[in-house]
Amino acid sequence: MALDDTKKTREFKVVGTRPDRPDGIDKVTGRARFGADMVAPGMLTGRILRSPHAHARIVRIDASKAEALSGVKAVVTRADFGEVPEDVADVLDNCMAGDKALYDGHAVAAVAASSPAVARKALKLIEVEYEVLPHVTDVDEAIKPDAAVLHEGRQQETVPEGLSQNVIARSEFGHGDIEAGLKQADRVVERTYRTAATHQGYIEPHACLATMGSDGRADLWVCTQGHYMVRNTCAAILGMEQGQLRVTASEIGGGFGGKTVVFLEPVALMLAKKAGRPVKMVMSRSEVLRATGPTSSTSIDVKIGMTKDGKITAGFAELRYQGGAYPGSPVDMGAMSGFAPYDLENVKTVGWDVVTNRPKAAAYRAPGAPMAAFAIESAIDEAAKGFGLDPLKVRLMNGADEGTKASYGPTYPAIGLKATLEAAKSHPHWSAPLGENQGRGVACGFWFNFGGDTCVSLNITPDGTVTVSEGNPDIGGSRASMTMMAAEELGIPYDQVRTIIADTGSLGQNEVTDGSRVTFAVGLATIKAAEAAKKEMCRRAALVWGIDEEAVEWEDGAARPAGPNAGKFPPMTLKEIAAIASNTGGPIAGHHEVNAEGAGVSFATHMVDVELDRDTGSTKILRYTVFQDAGKAVHPSYVEGQFQGGAVQGIGWALNEEYIYGEDGILQNAGFLDYRIPVASDLPMIDTVILEIPNPGHPYGVRGVGETSIVPPLAAIANAVSEAAGVRMTQLPMSPPRVLAALQAKAEG
Amino acid sequence: MALDDTKKTREFKVVGTRPDRPDGIDKVTGRARFGADMVAPGMLTGRILRSPHAHARIVRIDASKAEALSGVKAVVTRADFGEVPEDVADVLDNCMAGDKALYDGHAVAAVAASSPAVARKALKLIEVEYEVLPHVTDVDEAIKPDAAVLHEGRQQETVPEGLSQNVIARSEFGHGDIEAGLKQADRVVERTYRTAATHQGYIEPHACLATMGSDGRADLWVCTQGHYMVRNTCAAILGMEQGQLRVTASEIGGGFGGKTVVFLEPVALMLAKKAGRPVKMVMSRSEVLRATGPTSSTSIDVKIGMTKDGKITAGFAELRYQGGAYPGSPVDMGAMSGFAPYDLENVKTVGWDVVTNRPKAAAYRAPGAPMAAFAIESAIDEAAKGFGLDPLKVRLMNGADEGTKASYGPTYPAIGLKATLEAAKSHPHWSAPLGENQGRGVACGFWFNFGGDTCVSLNITPDGTVTVSEGNPDIGGSRASMTMMAAEELGIPYDQVRTIIADTGSLGQNEVTDGSRVTFAVGLATIKAAEAAKKEMCRRAALVWGIDEEAVEWEDGAARPAGPNAGKFPPMTLKEIAAIASNTGGPIAGHHEVNAEGAGVSFATHMVDVELDRDTGSTKILRYTVFQDAGKAVHPSYVEGQFQGGAVQGIGWALNEEYIYGEDGILQNAGFLDYRIPVASDLPMIDTVILEIPNPGHPYGVRGVGETSIVPPLAAIANAVSEAAGVRMTQLPMSPPRVLAALQAKAEG
Repeated sequence: MALDDTKKTREFKVVGTRPDRPDGIDKVTGRARFGADMVAPGMLTGRILRSPHAHARIVRIDASKAEALSGVKAVVTRADFGEVPEDVADVLDNCMAGDKALYDGHAVAAVAASSPAVARKALKLIEVEYEVLPHVTDVDEAIKPDAAVLHEGRQQETVPEGLSQNVIARSEFGHGDIEAGLKQADRVVERTYRTAATHQGYIEPHACLATMGSDGRADLWVCTQGHYMVRNTCAAILGMEQGQLRVTASEIGGGFGGKTVVFLEPVALMLAKKAGRPVKMVMSRSEVLRATGPTSSTSIDVKIGMTKDGKITAGFAELRYQGGAYPGSPVDMGAMSGFAPYDLENVKTVGWDVVTNRPKAAAYRAPGAPMAAFAIESAIDEAAKGFGLDPLKVRLMNGADEGTKASYGPTYPAIGLKATLEAAKSHPHWSAPLGENQGRGVACGFWFNFGGDTCVSLNITPDGTVTVSEGNPDIGGSRASMTMMAAEELGIPYDQVRTIIADTGSLGQNEVTDGSRVTFAVGLATIKAAEAAKKEMCRRAALVWGIDEEAVEWEDGAARPAGPNAGKFPPMTLKEIAAIASNTGGPIAGHHEVNAEGAGVSFATHMVDVELDRDTGSTKILRYTVFQDAGKAVHPSYVEGQFQGGAVQGIGWALNEEYIYGEDGILQNAGFLDYRIPVASDLPMIDTVILEIPNPGHPYGVRGVGETSIVPPLAAIANAVSEAAGVRMTQLPMSPPRVLAALQAKAEG
Repeated sequence: MALDDTKKTREFKVVGTRPDRPDGIDKVTGRARFGADMVAPGMLTGRILRSPHAHARIVRIDASKAEALSGVKAVVTRADFGEVPEDVADVLDNCMAGDKALYDGHAVAAVAASSPAVARKALKLIEVEYEVLPHVTDVDEAIKPDAAVLHEGRQQETVPEGLSQNVIARSEFGHGDIEAGLKQADRVVERTYRTAATHQGYIEPHACLATMGSDGRADLWVCTQGHYMVRNTCAAILGMEQGQLRVTASEIGGGFGGKTVVFLEPVALMLAKKAGRPVKMVMSRSEVLRATGPTSSTSIDVKIGMTKDGKITAGFAELRYQGGAYPGSPVDMGAMSGFAPYDLENVKTVGWDVVTNRPKAAAYRAPGAPMAAFAIESAIDEAAKGFGLDPLKVRLMNGADEGTKASYGPTYPAIGLKATLEAAKSHPHWSAPLGENQGRGVACGFWFNFGGDTCVSLNITPDGTVTVSEGNPDIGGSRASMTMMAAEELGIPYDQVRTIIADTGSLGQNEVTDGSRVTFAVGLATIKAAEAAKKEMCRRAALVWGIDEEAVEWEDGAARPAGPNAGKFPPMTLKEIAAIASNTGGPIAGHHEVNAEGAGVSFATHMVDVELDRDTGSTKILRYTVFQDAGKAVHPSYVEGQFQGGAVQGIGWALNEEYIYGEDGILQNAGFLDYRIPVASDLPMIDTVILEIPNPGHPYGVRGVGETSIVPPLAAIANAVSEAAGVRMTQLPMSPPRVLAALQAKAEG
């Protein structure tokens, strides 16, 4: 799809404005219905029994006492599911343990009962005999040949011999000759960096309501980022046809990648099937933290070679990501993205996918990328500062641009990295003075952005208002942006359009709301659907006027006779055409189904000032500015919100958040009192600068913006703290004890 | 649309079979969610205060005590609605009285409260000062010049002077010269017939759940025959844009025409708006009977001229229908349909639309037609029997056929009337012996069948199953028939398809589920949507094979290379094409939006045997056979169910059901104990004979079947009872007291 040449100067009327968000009132008044807000007559409460061991063979489950309890309508264990297709076997195993419990909190049985109290009592009556096994929760430990092994025979052929079976796969990306590049360097920075597992911290715990008839037809109401994914996965696990399972997405209280997989849903369906009654399941916060999908903890070696004038001659990284109890950490995303902001002759990354006795990692906003960026951007910073060079200038000198062969393969079209660096360099933040114990850090970040299967239907009501039906849960404001793009394309006001999220029975397949794909891909499909509707409206007008439909064009919300017919008839507005639709053939709609390609990559530069408290080791974020390319900011307030949200989650990750496992393999901080996410008082206002380098793959130039913003903060803050502390920080979170230790080590060393 | 010549010999694989109904399990297990089954967090109970007077000016409403009651969140009266567009003014007035209460049960105020108990209490605290006015509930009384008048200035110019203002309109249909025709007759039957108002008797009372945000966006869950009608009507009344009101139809526990209008919905929305909370409203049975829409009571004069060999020389009818408190009785439908089964040279009907102090009549299955058929088919029967002629032969002799100019205007294409008469004549029922006090009656019936605005989307899931999304509540089995037609057209099994009823945000405008339009119109759109999907699948296969898409055809569930390419590649099944859809462009769908034309008219002949108990006057239905043209019976069990259901409702109407108003204008039998619908023990098995004369306007030849079946029973039973009693029965219901009185009058006379 080529960029329309007129686009760069296109005057948008709706796109780029900041109308009220369509879900705003609903969310602040409690009208929005989240996962736990649906009920059905005769509904049961579903609850899950979870493993108290990090690693244990399940020798026997005796549910007879639970089943005998009055009010218990069904008990489900893995045995109820039987054999499932290979591509969902791990998913099921994670939802309901098979032979072994693989982590603290792993589901081993479930009940459906007439009340929460009965369900709780029933869980206590289920007898599980465990054979406790040795466990491993640290990624570097898990790699060692003598580590406790989770799975036998899952190791791929890419993995060299001599490593633990916990190492599932090895991947490699890059080009050039690292050794040759390193030889050209005046300095080589070589370090190992570590990050802790963190959770997405969404407000709303997982919840769903499942019903299934004895005819095999089922319905599911669920809080998810992708109800089509839920449908397809659950159908495969339950042995159903996809068409027989209708899934409706509730309003969603945050996801950030953590709701791109199923946890409760197949279990709820199986309970509903066995009980013959609707079953509602809602996780507690403790269950969310113990048994949903945080991101990987990682261990990363980086080697950067740099000349004294700042040219990066070689970039190498070896990334070890533990993905929890099953294969599939986001290490490849990290390995592909870490060097993506740079135009390097010699670049190589190696990724290791490692399993440990932790919950299976799920996606977390730009999955895999922030940790890689932390390591690589820290090393670049250290190398630059080692020569006394301006870290922004060094990044500009090495920065990727249109035509650069990216470290992960492709050649870039027009991209915005340098624009973000230039904007950062000329921003007053960069030249503002710093005080004592203060430091300033910068870092760059990259995200791919996805496209994928997408369906949109646009219908025109008899009164000439418009409904847009899309299949992606609205997490980052997609109802607003689809409404705006439809209004823009049709030439009507924003408030004439309402966008809804259709269930899986009403619209074709849609990829998950992830990969920052929605504003791009669903936007593309919305514009195309609007185009189809405009074409049909021009046809109706032509019919009324008795002229050829090619002789009609759409402009400014109305069909107009064009060419030789120009001016022959007064324009017919959308409302006028809608009013007579029934008499000119029937209702007017536009539909578009597409596997969207051409999602433009996105870059950001973050700048942060911190102040250390040398007595406590605590870090205060003083000032924070995000510079990011949005392609085209459809609704700038949402874009700013995405920039700010990514920065804030990055701040939490950098400074405080971490999964803390004890020697016993048990999660020690499964609650928001002990797992510390940033609160408002921890944060300054996050400033944002939106840059707009149009994506040639989208009619309006839109790029995804939701994920790139979490990539730079870990490194930017580490660079700032390192400057303030006078010591390079290589491990996250930079929590007060860890900073204090670093300061003391420096003082002592 | 021309009839496909291959159709008559088309071999159907799915259509014509009898698979399990898709809603069956749901309905018998309680999983189906009806109007009252939806809840929302923070939901209030809405209740309506109703007029205890048949006709009264509302002098003052003081709701201050109710508003002050703890737990009361909103009180609504007509004043809250302000001015509304003219076309919905009566609708609103019926939902919430304006200056006057026009019937017993007319809504005058509503409350939303935290519990049903508080709501009930609040209703009692609302003070309404009424000025009671004279009233009229009988149609013949209402016509008289001195009758109490409901509305001033509503009378149309078609009405001659000298009649009451309650006569709203006069209509006329027919052709030829009645007087000339009557002169050719050997006998003229001239009688007046009367029918009572009856209720549709649906199991489920009206119920809805409304929410509205302060942003003006609203959602409604409602039991209705047409959620698009609900949307458009409520949007007009509330001053909203249609696109901002999303309506979802619940499962429906019967409608029969009674759920084609709104009663609670605008009030629920207004309460929700004022309260800022969701409001649920559920009618009691008494409210259903007092204040929803029964059918008209009628008074009909008929004049039939017949030669001694049975030729009808003239047919005339004057029909007076009271439509309740507002203009718009179904009298025109009666006037147009009564003589529609016959090929008459001289035919004329005159219809009078009359208002009375009764609830506004709503549609009831073939609205207006059964009463007209009762009168006209009784008169024809009497004329035929007067000459000792076989009433079936007389009907065959005068019966309409292809090419007949119908009494209401159009010229018929291929129709099935004579086929039903021939089938009746040769059926063993017709020649079976009758015992003492027994009688046999026959009668014909006609219904137009509708088309109208219709939208269907058909989506193919990645596993190659199919979802069909339609916008008409499933009352008579449309989920089954759409599933079957989609499966038929795609060449896949029935259980690979699931049909759902989409909400108004997901699909374009759909007419109400009425007029027996759904199997025809939604079926047509479903087939067209499937054709579009097949075309797209052929295109995908062509892409894979690298051949021109015109060189691919769809047959038997698979794309096949055709013409010169035939056999070059193995067929690609739907499942195979679905599996690679993402790689060949994206999801595959088919859509169709149409104002469907070509609904084929439908005819039936009913035959019934009765036995009178001369001591009690009660009538027992001994045997009943329905002969009806279905065009093509998509799912014969549903078709038989429609035939049987129509007959049974007709039996109730003929023998027992009636609205009984006292002198005070108050409904005296507002409950199922006193309003007597037939129960199983009142009925024999209703036998059915399905005839299939294809409708040229539908690809599979489908005609609507749901309404015609209620048209003949009133007359057929009256003809049977008249025969058994030896006295012509001219008034419905033929309840035991009325039959006894007729027998006594005869004995005395």
